[in-house]
Amino acid sequence: MKKLIKDRTSVLSDMLEGLKLANSDIEIIEDTVVVRKEKKAKGVALVSGGGSGHEPAHAGYVAKGMLDAAVCGEIFTSPTPDKVLSAIKAVDNGDGVLLIVKNYAGDVMNFEMAQEMAEMEGIQVETVIVRDDISIEDVEKRRGVAGTVIVHKYAGFLSEQGLPLNEIKDKVEQLLVDVKSIGMALTAPMIPSTGQNGFDIQDDEMEIGIGIHGEKGLQRKPVESVDKIVEQLGDLLLKEVESKSVVVMVNGMGATPLTELNIVVKYVHEYFQSKGLNVQQWLVGDYMTSLNMEGFSITIAPSHDELLTALNAHTESRYF
Amino acid sequence: MKKLIKDRTSVLSDMLEGLKLANSDIEIIEDTVVVRKEKKAKGVALVSGGGSGHEPAHAGYVAKGMLDAAVCGEIFTSPTPDKVLSAIKAVDNGDGVLLIVKNYAGDVMNFEMAQEMAEMEGIQVETVIVRDDISIEDVEKRRGVAGTVIVHKYAGFLSEQGLPLNEIKDKVEQLLVDVKSIGMALTAPMIPSTGQNGFDIQDDEMEIGIGIHGEKGLQRKPVESVDKIVEQLGDLLLKEVESKSVVVMVNGMGATPLTELNIVVKYVHEYFQSKGLNVQQWLVGDYMTSLNMEGFSITIAPSHDELLTALNAHTESRYF
Repeated sequence: MKKLIKDRTSVLSDMLEGLKLANSDIEIIEDTVVVRKEKKAKGVALVSGGGSGHEPAHAGYVAKGMLDAAVCGEIFTSPTPDKVLSAIKAVDNGDGVLLIVKNYAGDVMNFEMAQEMAEMEGIQVETVIVRDDISIEDVEKRRGVAGTVIVHKYAGFLSEQGLPLNEIKDKVEQLLVDVKSIGMALTAPMIPSTGQNGFDIQDDEMEIGIGIHGEKGLQRKPVESVDKIVEQLGDLLLKEVESKSVVVMVNGMGATPLTELNIVVKYVHEYFQSKGLNVQQWLVGDYMTSLNMEGFSITIAPSHDELLTALNAHTESRYF
Repeated sequence: MKKLIKDRTSVLSDMLEGLKLANSDIEIIEDTVVVRKEKKAKGVALVSGGGSGHEPAHAGYVAKGMLDAAVCGEIFTSPTPDKVLSAIKAVDNGDGVLLIVKNYAGDVMNFEMAQEMAEMEGIQVETVIVRDDISIEDVEKRRGVAGTVIVHKYAGFLSEQGLPLNEIKDKVEQLLVDVKSIGMALTAPMIPSTGQNGFDIQDDEMEIGIGIHGEKGLQRKPVESVDKIVEQLGDLLLKEVESKSVVVMVNGMGATPLTELNIVVKYVHEYFQSKGLNVQQWLVGDYMTSLNMEGFSITIAPSHDELLTALNAHTESRYF
């Protein structure tokens, strides 16, 4: 297996240790929970997390202006409720805790159990579930993907503004109704625990509508030029989006060079322009990856002043 | 060819257009020269560049606190002297221009010709040549790689401090004596103009001492675990480095997920610690890439207060 790892069992702990070395303002508690060294003294605390392998999500966003804690499961595996509870207890300052959870059965269940346990200890906790991946038709079953990072930044800003828990939850849920993502891949991620690729794909094929855990896509097709790929993804997105003024994230899946992501941006711009959409803000880079998968996703959110202010507000995270 | 491109001939122009869309404070002149929209009114202007395919280098560093212009050649191809001259003339404000050039014959020749032409027009120009790649024994022939980005940041800081051209040049040259890099690759980059990989490599092999243009390395070897790889690279670096207090960059080659770069950091830390080196500052991410090559490089520089201040000074570049 060609991977920069020591062995299959130490991927998570080695990765977190490296992350901590490179980011002196975080620390790791209970082996797999990343928190800020300087705990926020007041304001709603934000906790996210899930399986690892999506770096910089989620641990890279633990920083002033974004998250207060990230609960890191093994690669593509939900963290356990006790770890989520530890995160909640570590960051709560009395103003309550918002859990930002991607819509996967394990994550939803384990974060919910932790919420119940925390509430029994008298901590005020609310949860928002991110379901931005439109490759699944049933809205309730939609997975949380790159749009989650927009939520981290938006909620982080609202918390810095001193808004109370219920208000932040309401605003985030209002935003989430209209955050939509769709992704594609040229290659599958190789899962370190098995040494196997998430799916098999030929040298002349691509997947449209992939997930971020090596799940196959909606469609397997011959590779096309980037403008054609963007058109297909864009057509799927525009079935869901009414706003003509939008924020767009072009997210790399982990092994996509910035050279190519920039090319994607050009064609996304041309496509949206041809459809009368006005892009107010671009977010381009690796925000929510899937190990070494080559490909990208497009996330779209209706633009409004507060969201633009939030996306451009200062954060100490070097990954946003 | 599996690449997110429209066609082979439009890679550079499409990439620059996307970069400009995503970064509203830059503009493109003469098709391939990236400059800041707000020209620096005083202080030494910094110009770098070279072949493209190393994104975010160099165009992504055109921002307050780093470069004033980047001259972008086609993928892995030197820009022509007339473009370099255009960059110099666009950014000079009377305080002179420093050219930061990686040591490749074409780059050195073309930047030198541009310098001569600019001097004939009365512009004060100096050049520094980066030769940080220790995989080549002859120091004069050493290539410029990721260490170049440390120079961009250091020189950008010195320029913001208002230092005159000769002083910035002297300080950068003093730094460059001790900036050393070495890289490795699991895969070769695929060159879009030919649709061919830079070199052939088997599924169980790696290259030690690669360049950033698809050049083969010093050695072809069976893949090993990351701690063993780091040890080999570290042993080569330590032959060249005397300082015990260092700045370390762990640079991704374009298709290396942050998950794995963080693991590399852990083992680089352990290796240097075992050798009595103290890492004062980590820089971890994709700084100087080679299209979609999987692999990483380690760059080391002696730490001193001014360099640390420079590396942590504000820049508007979102890629540093």
